[in-house]
Amino acid sequence: MKLSRKDVLAFSASSALALAASRAARAMAGAMPLSPGASRSPNGGDLSRLTTAALRSLPPLQPATTIRRSGRKQHFTLIIASAMVEPLPGHNVQLPTINGISPGPVLRMTEGDDVEVVVINRLAKATSIHWHGVPVPFPMDGAAMFSQEPIPSLQQFTYRWTAPQAGTYMYHSHFNDMEQESVAGMIVVEPQTSGREPHYAVDVPLMVTSVDWEPARQVAAQAILANSMLMPSMAVNPKADPNPGMGDAMERMDMTEYWCFNGKTFPATAPIRVKQGDLVRVRFANMSHMTHPMHLHGHWFRWIAQDGVPVAHPYAMNTIPVDPGRTIEIDFIANNPGVWPLHCHIVSHMVDNRDLMSGLVAVVQYEGFSLPEMMRSLSAD
Amino acid sequence: MKLSRKDVLAFSASSALALAASRAARAMAGAMPLSPGASRSPNGGDLSRLTTAALRSLPPLQPATTIRRSGRKQHFTLIIASAMVEPLPGHNVQLPTINGISPGPVLRMTEGDDVEVVVINRLAKATSIHWHGVPVPFPMDGAAMFSQEPIPSLQQFTYRWTAPQAGTYMYHSHFNDMEQESVAGMIVVEPQTSGREPHYAVDVPLMVTSVDWEPARQVAAQAILANSMLMPSMAVNPKADPNPGMGDAMERMDMTEYWCFNGKTFPATAPIRVKQGDLVRVRFANMSHMTHPMHLHGHWFRWIAQDGVPVAHPYAMNTIPVDPGRTIEIDFIANNPGVWPLHCHIVSHMVDNRDLMSGLVAVVQYEGFSLPEMMRSLSAD
Amino acid sequence: MKLSRKDVLAFSASSALALAASRAARAMAGAMPLSPGASRSPNGGDLSRLTTAALRSLPPLQPATTIRRSGRKQHFTLIIASAMVEPLPGHNVQLPTINGISPGPVLRMTEGDDVEVVVINRLAKATSIHWHGVPVPFPMDGAAMFSQEPIPSLQQFTYRWTAPQAGTYMYHSHFNDMEQESVAGMIVVEPQTSGREPHYAVDVPLMVTSVDWEPARQVAAQAILANSMLMPSMAVNPKADPNPGMGDAMERMDMTEYWCFNGKTFPATAPIRVKQGDLVRVRFANMSHMTHPMHLHGHWFRWIAQDGVPVAHPYAMNTIPVDPGRTIEIDFIANNPGVWPLHCHIVSHMVDNRDLMSGLVAVVQYEGFSLPEMMRSLSAD
Repeated sequence: MKLSRKDVLAFSASSALALAASRAARAMAGAMPLSPGASRSPNGGDLSRLTTAALRSLPPLQPATTIRRSGRKQHFTLIIASAMVEPLPGHNVQLPTINGISPGPVLRMTEGDDVEVVVINRLAKATSIHWHGVPVPFPMDGAAMFSQEPIPSLQQFTYRWTAPQAGTYMYHSHFNDMEQESVAGMIVVEPQTSGREPHYAVDVPLMVTSVDWEPARQVAAQAILANSMLMPSMAVNPKADPNPGMGDAMERMDMTEYWCFNGKTFPATAPIRVKQGDLVRVRFANMSHMTHPMHLHGHWFRWIAQDGVPVAHPYAMNTIPVDPGRTIEIDFIANNPGVWPLHCHIVSHMVDNRDLMSGLVAVVQYEGFSLPEMMRSLSAD
Repeated sequence: MKLSRKDVLAFSASSALALAASRAARAMAGAMPLSPGASRSPNGGDLSRLTTAALRSLPPLQPATTIRRSGRKQHFTLIIASAMVEPLPGHNVQLPTINGISPGPVLRMTEGDDVEVVVINRLAKATSIHWHGVPVPFPMDGAAMFSQEPIPSLQQFTYRWTAPQAGTYMYHSHFNDMEQESVAGMIVVEPQTSGREPHYAVDVPLMVTSVDWEPARQVAAQAILANSMLMPSMAVNPKADPNPGMGDAMERMDMTEYWCFNGKTFPATAPIRVKQGDLVRVRFANMSHMTHPMHLHGHWFRWIAQDGVPVAHPYAMNTIPVDPGRTIEIDFIANNPGVWPLHCHIVSHMVDNRDLMSGLVAVVQYEGFSLPEMMRSLSAD
Repeated sequence: MKLSRKDVLAFSASSALALAASRAARAMAGAMPLSPGASRSPNGGDLSRLTTAALRSLPPLQPATTIRRSGRKQHFTLIIASAMVEPLPGHNVQLPTINGISPGPVLRMTEGDDVEVVVINRLAKATSIHWHGVPVPFPMDGAAMFSQEPIPSLQQFTYRWTAPQAGTYMYHSHFNDMEQESVAGMIVVEPQTSGREPHYAVDVPLMVTSVDWEPARQVAAQAILANSMLMPSMAVNPKADPNPGMGDAMERMDMTEYWCFNGKTFPATAPIRVKQGDLVRVRFANMSHMTHPMHLHGHWFRWIAQDGVPVAHPYAMNTIPVDPGRTIEIDFIANNPGVWPLHCHIVSHMVDNRDLMSGLVAVVQYEGFSLPEMMRSLSAD
């Protein structure tokens, strides 16, 4: 758990490089110039980082004024089937998935593309897929029993629609079910015309889902829930909950599931790798049943878009609530080298019943810095 | 559950009419003109629908600069009494109500009106009525024990205040109680001066409340809760919960109540009937204890006001969180014919324990389209 | 519970004074002038109060453009140790605290100050302190296992950083724990340059935490939870819950803790004392695990900042959701004399299991008005 000598050396070595890179990058991003001498604090670090002036100087995303058919076709095949997923190494859960994974693949396209999606249903039950946020023609909406008959087991259905204005959207099942919590994925639409967005060195989708603990953990789950009700005698095995006093009833309920970014829970979440001076974009999409206030250490970020719509006058903040059913895009300037948590600020979504960090915790990892120990064995560093 | 031949014919027949109407309406609403040829996608539908340009071109609501006494008097009588309500046909629940209904009647007035409300308390307990969001004179605020003695059982109290700036407000009980969850209603104030708002063809109040299941369903409720704790042996009748594995603990708790729009739960919610080209306004007010992210299929909408205050620079989105105690107004252009769900995106607020659609689901129903089968027997179509 | 003769006299006496003061204050605050005659409603009160025109005329907070080192040093010592707190008189709870209190002390500083905080850990477990929202140099971030080894029991660590742009921030523990819910406090940074903010006569920090009931109340807590599950037979003492039918399962869970503003729950919350015409600022910070929609009676307020960042185009509202991990600043004009609740609008956060007002309820108390009876014995009036 100690910061290694390697880490300290890495930090020092990167500082000089960082300074040069950050001047150049900041000019490119339109931020205010670094004035060396007087603006360097004795604590290290650049004082311009202590204001949101740089973020304020960035232009907002420009919306589309009109969309032309691009003439390009995008074809996707989505197979809905039960499969094993692994939110945490060594922990496998059987779930409805899309092409074997949950969330499903990110569907990438450009405004005005002709999109065709063949949905093949290999679940035992009927299903349908809804294109959340996309103004499709009614028969293509995928709201079973509203716009179509559900797709029966072992049948398929072909959806056709035109890609809308640039932004972040979602797709998910929509037939009277809890399955939408795992049969879901993100849609990323690029602008048709240039010059509407800043250049992002890093652009990361983070879809939030929750996955109930697997059967092997149900005895522990039941102990946690029994203790949430102050009824330890009701637990089949009370000792399966190592911290009966930890958290209130509502917090304890959250501990019996894996809260995931892109299907992985901390420490298995993928690091967001950046270099100093990068402009970084994160696209949140929430298919869980709770709102998650996402907090980034060491940086402010701007709220730049929601539901495929650019924000005309972006605000800066360090914590943003992402509600179920919303997509929210943020951006920030990588102007503070380190290894920084980006996490939901609800404690029971970042800590588990063993009082270890777990859940909706990602890491913004600057070049030259090592991941914390608990992540290293799980990620190529 | 099949889309009927009637539905398909209705869709085709309405298309031609729709095209003409939408051009006219869009001009009226200030949206961009439809250019036929190149802008029609082969999937059907108008490409201008794929951007928020039309919504951006709509003016915001204009706030009042000053209010004069209108000289008009508005008198209301509100009788607070226990009564039977029917959130779902065949399911009756005894509740504190206002004039026999919950929510109570929408109180309609114009800025500057002299408002007089006689509140008659026929509950067994004391109560008071608070005018949520209205800056009334202190003795009229209705916060029992702060601004007045509560109104004893079988007594009455007369509130007098002047109607504030145009917008959406609420009234509800306010004496140490859970009763405010059913003793509540909406207040709609119209502008005193003209030209401050676009013309809305449709203007719909949607108040959110939750109603605990009736006594006859308590055995099922108890089975659902027992299974939420993974303690089926604690249920008086475990078989009363048909899907013990469905949902996590928090979601299951939500399943033992009726989540209602204007006192009705899906499929008994009233359809929102629109014609293509309409400008539609929806006024949300939330007197339940949870935030509801409201999602509309097929359309973006603008957030135009909250708590009686117009938004100067409205944002577009397709999902908006409506928190307890807030009123939120949205508007959208009916530019995508169909039958579209407008619903809370928390799964346990749109699905019940039998895995059927239930709860905070309303429907935007375009002229010429039939309601889904499960709604038809409940609504004059 | 009756409004006393003293209250009525106080109200009348203050009216004349109020009128004069409000003209002067409103001019000072840039609000529109009071025109006597025609604008006074027969219900008492000033009609200008019925619009948000006055709030709209207030300038927004001006952000910092650049920060210079001030040359001033701010030194703080924070001792993290278990101590007894008293969220409600007569109810003592053992908790991890900072300098013996929870929340800990407000740390006050000016932009550009050199800040040095010695954190002394007297808990039995390791800990660290994170400076939530402050862009500190990485080794100072206090995210245990990311930026530092946790501070072992009986050890100390010195944090050094430069105070960022003016606004409201937080500090809290950050080592795999639930302790952050009580080991937390607010940071208030003042502007370095003048003329960037209006003059606030009143500026109140309100930090939200929740404190589980003490051991002596656990039998009652267990009865409340047993009844939330409709399992009264599971309660050790079912009679310890006086209202078994009150509230749904989720609401009941909230009733087994003290929801606190600055460590106190109603009626022990400190009144916010104002004079008519005051411009009042409230800084919310939320270290609990739930979002709280904060509602003010009798007034609209503006949302003026979040997370240390001024809002360029403030909106007015009467209810604002404050999510876990956020700081939110509001301001309002004290233009409506009275004693007004400022409270979370989730019913189970303002009422307890005995159906008495309890929890996140503060009071805005105008000069000349008495507190409600239940607060008076607890507060010097």
